[in-house]
Amino acid sequence: MTASRPEIVAAPDAIAAAVRDARGRGRRVGFVPTMGALHAGHASLAAAAATACDDVAVSIFVNPTQFGPHEDFHRYPRALEADCRLLAEQHVRWVFAPPVEAIYPPGHATRIVVEGPALPLEGAIRPGHFSGVATVVQRLFQLVPADRAYFGAKDWQQTVVVRRMVADLGIPVEIVVLPTVREADGLAMSSRNAYLSPVDRRRAVGLHVALLEAERDWSTGVAPEAIAAGMRRTIEAHGIAVDYATVVDPESLQPLSAPFASAVALVAGRLGTTRLIDNRLLAADRRPGAAP
Amino acid sequence: MTASRPEIVAAPDAIAAAVRDARGRGRRVGFVPTMGALHAGHASLAAAAATACDDVAVSIFVNPTQFGPHEDFHRYPRALEADCRLLAEQHVRWVFAPPVEAIYPPGHATRIVVEGPALPLEGAIRPGHFSGVATVVQRLFQLVPADRAYFGAKDWQQTVVVRRMVADLGIPVEIVVLPTVREADGLAMSSRNAYLSPVDRRRAVGLHVALLEAERDWSTGVAPEAIAAGMRRTIEAHGIAVDYATVVDPESLQPLSAPFASAVALVAGRLGTTRLIDNRLLAADRRPGAAP
Repeated sequence: MTASRPEIVAAPDAIAAAVRDARGRGRRVGFVPTMGALHAGHASLAAAAATACDDVAVSIFVNPTQFGPHEDFHRYPRALEADCRLLAEQHVRWVFAPPVEAIYPPGHATRIVVEGPALPLEGAIRPGHFSGVATVVQRLFQLVPADRAYFGAKDWQQTVVVRRMVADLGIPVEIVVLPTVREADGLAMSSRNAYLSPVDRRRAVGLHVALLEAERDWSTGVAPEAIAAGMRRTIEAHGIAVDYATVVDPESLQPLSAPFASAVALVAGRLGTTRLIDNRLLAADRRPGAAP
Repeated sequence: MTASRPEIVAAPDAIAAAVRDARGRGRRVGFVPTMGALHAGHASLAAAAATACDDVAVSIFVNPTQFGPHEDFHRYPRALEADCRLLAEQHVRWVFAPPVEAIYPPGHATRIVVEGPALPLEGAIRPGHFSGVATVVQRLFQLVPADRAYFGAKDWQQTVVVRRMVADLGIPVEIVVLPTVREADGLAMSSRNAYLSPVDRRRAVGLHVALLEAERDWSTGVAPEAIAAGMRRTIEAHGIAVDYATVVDPESLQPLSAPFASAVALVAGRLGTTRLIDNRLLAADRRPGAAP
């Protein structure tokens, strides 16, 4: 197959009409919402969408409402030209790259607020973040009415929040979550890795190391609190300032209460001004004596 | 036509399937969301829906999330049997009367927050009220995917908030707003009028009297601030405690700034523990020198 360049669409009406037209002709449409500055993780989402669907739309929109006032909205990397080359290789049909006023037109005044699984962890540290995510994802699902939407497991809590919102609002889209793609040393792919100095880049693997230790401890029956304490020590030993290191229920993101089955280990830390997150699902069948 | 009794539906799946089936067969469906304890105002909405549409659904759901913790959720009047008789006369096909857990199933964690026109007036006095309204209306629109939905102008700010949300979320429903229906003395119909003692019932007309004076003042060029002050005096003279009495832009609900065209006069007051609201649209063509 030739890797033809995707069609870049800026107008909401145009992408909505194109997707509806494709679906009306019986084609299955996959959608990958992104903030651009694409890496191999995004490529894996687009590739999975292209395998399972007839047409793939990728949105590139750095959403201002999910950044806090002192966060990195303005310096967040933008690279539309390189992004389109990467997406061409994945046989993406449409790149929806709207201006801010197309997503939030004048007079727009409606926010979506998810509570429950959106409250702890990233929700506690980044007030308003998940409201911004939920609001833009609802809006994107409205403009790109696809059969399936693809998200990376690296942002675990985000995937839980999006699935919660989709269920609560009755949005007719199937959410597909795919495994985190990693650098050779295990660092989770992230557009924010580009911020790291060479020294901090080497330190950043500490998150992954801590999660591997958590998985090992989980499989030998170590208590969740002790696993969390071990992760914190490991992350700090790599020179990373810990925002949180915890083992919680994968759906509610609340502390585990016995008898528990699976869990998720979640970590967040800062290297200088760069904030990184990662996680690892801890499977029930790897836990001695866990509920089936 | 015979006034056959409407079908009472409690299950969300059942009402959604019935409405989709009707629309799939080319029938136009009208929807009137209510909290029950129906009066002639609701009847006028159902009658208009029955005139314009092939099938009419009315929901009866006293929505807990739009009441404040010290408001009248528990004593709000419930009268399903009488409501169904009234709706039968209006040729309503379905009464959707779900239990609370059908609207807010276990784990439900998503709220819709409208800012802008939802912030002042009722939004300021009843924190969370419009979030509750927006959340339940979105949910009802999802379960009753009608062509048109009917609301009464008595809750003017609510109609603005609902139209804002429908636009922002891209909900494919046409919002129809119909005139307030009044008692013989001019008091706006409201389920809460049933709370009033005979003495307070006579006083309650003060809201309507104030709005008629506002309309007269508007047509003679009185300044908005002076109209508002006059309304306040009239309402207080009727023994009603004023929550607000104001003349604002009908869409933004913000103070008028010259040159203005139309306006809306909005009043809210309390008689004992009963809270009443009313409003009157002040038309551009009745204002000397108003912008066209």
